[in-house]
Amino acid sequence: MSRPDDGPQVPRYTYLGPEGTFTEAALRQVPGVENAECIPAGSVITALAAVRAGTADYAMVPIENSVEGGVSATLDDIAEGEPLQILREVLVPISFVLVGRREMELSEVRSVATHTHGWAQVRNWAAEHIPQAEFIPASSTAGGARGLLDPDTTYDAAVCAPLVAAQTGLPVLASAIEDTAGAVTRFVLVSRPGALPVPTGSDKTTVVVPLSEDRPGALMEILDQFSTRGINLSRIESRPTGAGLGSYFFSIDLEGHLGEERVSAALAGLYRLIPGIRFLGSYPRADHRRYEVREHTTDQAYRAGQAWVQEILNR
Amino acid sequence: MSRPDDGPQVPRYTYLGPEGTFTEAALRQVPGVENAECIPAGSVITALAAVRAGTADYAMVPIENSVEGGVSATLDDIAEGEPLQILREVLVPISFVLVGRREMELSEVRSVATHTHGWAQVRNWAAEHIPQAEFIPASSTAGGARGLLDPDTTYDAAVCAPLVAAQTGLPVLASAIEDTAGAVTRFVLVSRPGALPVPTGSDKTTVVVPLSEDRPGALMEILDQFSTRGINLSRIESRPTGAGLGSYFFSIDLEGHLGEERVSAALAGLYRLIPGIRFLGSYPRADHRRYEVREHTTDQAYRAGQAWVQEILNR
Amino acid sequence: MSRPDDGPQVPRYTYLGPEGTFTEAALRQVPGVENAECIPAGSVITALAAVRAGTADYAMVPIENSVEGGVSATLDDIAEGEPLQILREVLVPISFVLVGRREMELSEVRSVATHTHGWAQVRNWAAEHIPQAEFIPASSTAGGARGLLDPDTTYDAAVCAPLVAAQTGLPVLASAIEDTAGAVTRFVLVSRPGALPVPTGSDKTTVVVPLSEDRPGALMEILDQFSTRGINLSRIESRPTGAGLGSYFFSIDLEGHLGEERVSAALAGLYRLIPGIRFLGSYPRADHRRYEVREHTTDQAYRAGQAWVQEILNR
Amino acid sequence: MSRPDDGPQVPRYTYLGPEGTFTEAALRQVPGVENAECIPAGSVITALAAVRAGTADYAMVPIENSVEGGVSATLDDIAEGEPLQILREVLVPISFVLVGRREMELSEVRSVATHTHGWAQVRNWAAEHIPQAEFIPASSTAGGARGLLDPDTTYDAAVCAPLVAAQTGLPVLASAIEDTAGAVTRFVLVSRPGALPVPTGSDKTTVVVPLSEDRPGALMEILDQFSTRGINLSRIESRPTGAGLGSYFFSIDLEGHLGEERVSAALAGLYRLIPGIRFLGSYPRADHRRYEVREHTTDQAYRAGQAWVQEILNR
Repeated sequence: MSRPDDGPQVPRYTYLGPEGTFTEAALRQVPGVENAECIPAGSVITALAAVRAGTADYAMVPIENSVEGGVSATLDDIAEGEPLQILREVLVPISFVLVGRREMELSEVRSVATHTHGWAQVRNWAAEHIPQAEFIPASSTAGGARGLLDPDTTYDAAVCAPLVAAQTGLPVLASAIEDTAGAVTRFVLVSRPGALPVPTGSDKTTVVVPLSEDRPGALMEILDQFSTRGINLSRIESRPTGAGLGSYFFSIDLEGHLGEERVSAALAGLYRLIPGIRFLGSYPRADHRRYEVREHTTDQAYRAGQAWVQEILNR
Repeated sequence: MSRPDDGPQVPRYTYLGPEGTFTEAALRQVPGVENAECIPAGSVITALAAVRAGTADYAMVPIENSVEGGVSATLDDIAEGEPLQILREVLVPISFVLVGRREMELSEVRSVATHTHGWAQVRNWAAEHIPQAEFIPASSTAGGARGLLDPDTTYDAAVCAPLVAAQTGLPVLASAIEDTAGAVTRFVLVSRPGALPVPTGSDKTTVVVPLSEDRPGALMEILDQFSTRGINLSRIESRPTGAGLGSYFFSIDLEGHLGEERVSAALAGLYRLIPGIRFLGSYPRADHRRYEVREHTTDQAYRAGQAWVQEILNR
Repeated sequence: MSRPDDGPQVPRYTYLGPEGTFTEAALRQVPGVENAECIPAGSVITALAAVRAGTADYAMVPIENSVEGGVSATLDDIAEGEPLQILREVLVPISFVLVGRREMELSEVRSVATHTHGWAQVRNWAAEHIPQAEFIPASSTAGGARGLLDPDTTYDAAVCAPLVAAQTGLPVLASAIEDTAGAVTRFVLVSRPGALPVPTGSDKTTVVVPLSEDRPGALMEILDQFSTRGINLSRIESRPTGAGLGSYFFSIDLEGHLGEERVSAALAGLYRLIPGIRFLGSYPRADHRRYEVREHTTDQAYRAGQAWVQEILNR
Repeated sequence: MSRPDDGPQVPRYTYLGPEGTFTEAALRQVPGVENAECIPAGSVITALAAVRAGTADYAMVPIENSVEGGVSATLDDIAEGEPLQILREVLVPISFVLVGRREMELSEVRSVATHTHGWAQVRNWAAEHIPQAEFIPASSTAGGARGLLDPDTTYDAAVCAPLVAAQTGLPVLASAIEDTAGAVTRFVLVSRPGALPVPTGSDKTTVVVPLSEDRPGALMEILDQFSTRGINLSRIESRPTGAGLGSYFFSIDLEGHLGEERVSAALAGLYRLIPGIRFLGSYPRADHRRYEVREHTTDQAYRAGQAWVQEILNR
């Protein structure tokens, strides 16, 4: 199938908005996006729905944060409904700034608006430097900041991404105020299902595996499909299916590309055990890190094994 | 050791407040709590800190929701710092009501305040019944509702627990508005470390296991300690350690009590592999569900095996 | 390739002789053998060498006895040198008779000739019924019996198969004298490599797997290739390679046919780990016993898994 | 218990005779044996029966040959009946000589007596150097050689151990005639059950494990008890139980001593799965080879794990 960028139309990207979010920063890293149509969405679910409905070609959404963990809305929404496919991952270092409605001393700040998650990541800094300030929940970090442009807004400052400070021109009262230095958020670019990106030798594959039974060893049977083939997992996240406590699915990132023999063998093996498995994409690693493929699990080894069997069967 | 309820003092409970939250509903299920001191806390972290500091004896906090998944704040905070211990789990069915500042038609509601998580759980209902209403983020569902009592509040309605409606007397505009029927939140009662509750034959044990390596099979080695002993896992949740993408710890609930041989053998085995393991408690299951213990993993089987070896060594 | 029964020639069978052995009894069960040329061989090694050299088309040799265990000469010789292939297995109940040079009372028997292995299987009977008799080792049970036809022979009796008693007409002094009732020897019909017999749904596959390493788990990696695919092993035998104590190969019979997906996947997987693996044949079970193939390891399940992967790759 | 060397009696050893066998060579390596009573036995079974009956204190018997494999009589007899215990292992290099009734040229040798197993190990040499000679089966290599001292014997030569040539003074026509250089036979010194030899850091433990089920994975469950504890197996041998094809027990040598935590944990674990397990002894390795014990399976690691659990239970 082809993705609908036929004709003279430019590709349409949507992303978790509003403008200035870290998600927009992630989107800006995609080659060619500067000539594309970029539409902020009010939520991850809205963004993914736009792709499913065909009103956008691609959506950029956060999937994992090195401090906060998995982004439930993304993990859950992508795991069911109309199939989607991850084409690319983007890593964005997370750093926060404190912007004010005007230049002011930190001791003058009496109220700070930001998203709950943003506040969680600057809590210690705030306790030390602006202990007097009240926290005002906002629907997004960018939204809290943009609110400062509104003369009717009653709060003094906002915690947001450096990008939104640059876009709005709001005065930066303090920067790099995040409690955990080096935090990173991982974003994924999602489309409707189509051809896989070509293998690069440094790829990831994402799958969703419902765990149908909770007997001892059910999860081990899943993991065994990977470990017997020497496939490392770079992420494993359990999520409730919504059917009750104890009913989970696993969102898994593994090293390798479906076009590689050991990966296709592992996923075919999983499919046999759990036909409800969902393939979410094979795509290049953002960090281009090479991983070791053990000698007996290379494509060459797989083909040699298959050839040996075939030669006997063809006698 | 003893917990500090010496003297005529009543035990002091703290919980994730404010009053009217589902957490308070959970706390109300603890026998004897009606005669105790109950102090709402502004956050999970504050509640747990009060126990660690000794200003409260017990804290009730949410740990898992059947729809939303693990409660990151609880999972993360309990996993590090001064050790804590889970004494009890409590299950609370999650149902939401829409309360108004006054009796009004649904079509009149123009703005609704609630916590982001609460909003996520009624989103579909809202889209259908109050599509015109704007979402106003609040710091908690109870907080959003209580705000309606303030004459200066500008929003019309709030989504909250039935308990807070009862406590405030606010008019209920609609009930059971949750998108997923049958949702349950699991809460845990936490204290400083002390004697374990006695085994009941239907217990859970909670541990935190950092995964030091990401080679293929590292997670399997952990799970193998359980599966070779026939121990089922009722929850497994990966959480970032904060040290960077790909660095995880696992929060695990397993069936059984540390006082049982197969559980103590499994945890001693895990300790050998991963000395950083943290024991968070053995406590009765809230649902009293019995689980099968396979014949070769009963206490009796363990003792027979040990006796056989010992008899040879004692010849 | 074709086996050399071109032209009007009858097929040539060799077997572990001399005439009258249990091996000849096994050979007599092969359909069509009554019209073939049957040549006794002096040893298993000679019989297999004749097939390798092309002076015989087939060899019948013993491979396993339910009391004595594996037949080392067969297991070792078939495991190296020019490749051979097992086409068929035959089970023969093992029962012994005592034949005499003439009719006589048991109390008159002063010396008994037989093969050491034969003697081992009637030892208890002999201790009870002919305690006075001396054991004279013979090169085969049939050889010991035939020796009685020679007027110069000095011993009185021989322990042998019922077949040799019938062939020679020697008087039977006692029958069914074996210590273990119900003993069975399993024989295999061997040829040079060629087309596999068609799968019947009740087949065995025999392989030889050298164990290159003696680290913990090396054998488990081998067995894992079978158990993850639900493949039962009906025989596993370790044999020294001759390279020193601790250096082994494993001779393995597994349930299933190389033409079945789960078997070909397991053997291809073993080949990747241990390229020195040797395939010795897929052939019908002599007992026609059906075995259960678990739902997720049927050919249909394998093909569904492969089709699912292929469909994604073909997008 | 004590072994019966009370009073001024010397210990009584029996061994697989007659004099001059490799087994006697093995027995000669036991310290103090030169002052003991040494009684040759006619068979392995007779030797072990003497120990069981108390008419001997110790028996030396062969258990494994690097070329021929396991010694079935020993493996089977020691695996059932009254319990026995292995105290020590002894390795003897296997080399054969050809002795004659008188000095003669190899071309003059027309008949050679020896045990079938001995003949199997010199077959190639004989085919090359004495192709004209007929093989005469003997009940043992030593017996065949000693027969040459009898003037009525009709054969010319015998294949035997160097020891028997030295003991009899028979002329050596050729030495080191074994086909496989470097062959070694392993012998074990057996007594009635008693105290274990002290751990030396380089020990072996021998067990017999019946395999009650032949479902996929039954053998893996056994092996898993060892591999999860990092215990290497130096020998694994399957033997028929006699109850029919497909019914096996496994004779296993593992690295380590029952007095070590990881070994006692593994065997207690096996006992839980298979109460019919039989312990046959922990004893020093003859080759004194050190093996690596992985950090998490040392006695220290085991005790740390147990202490950690105990500390929690003792709170």
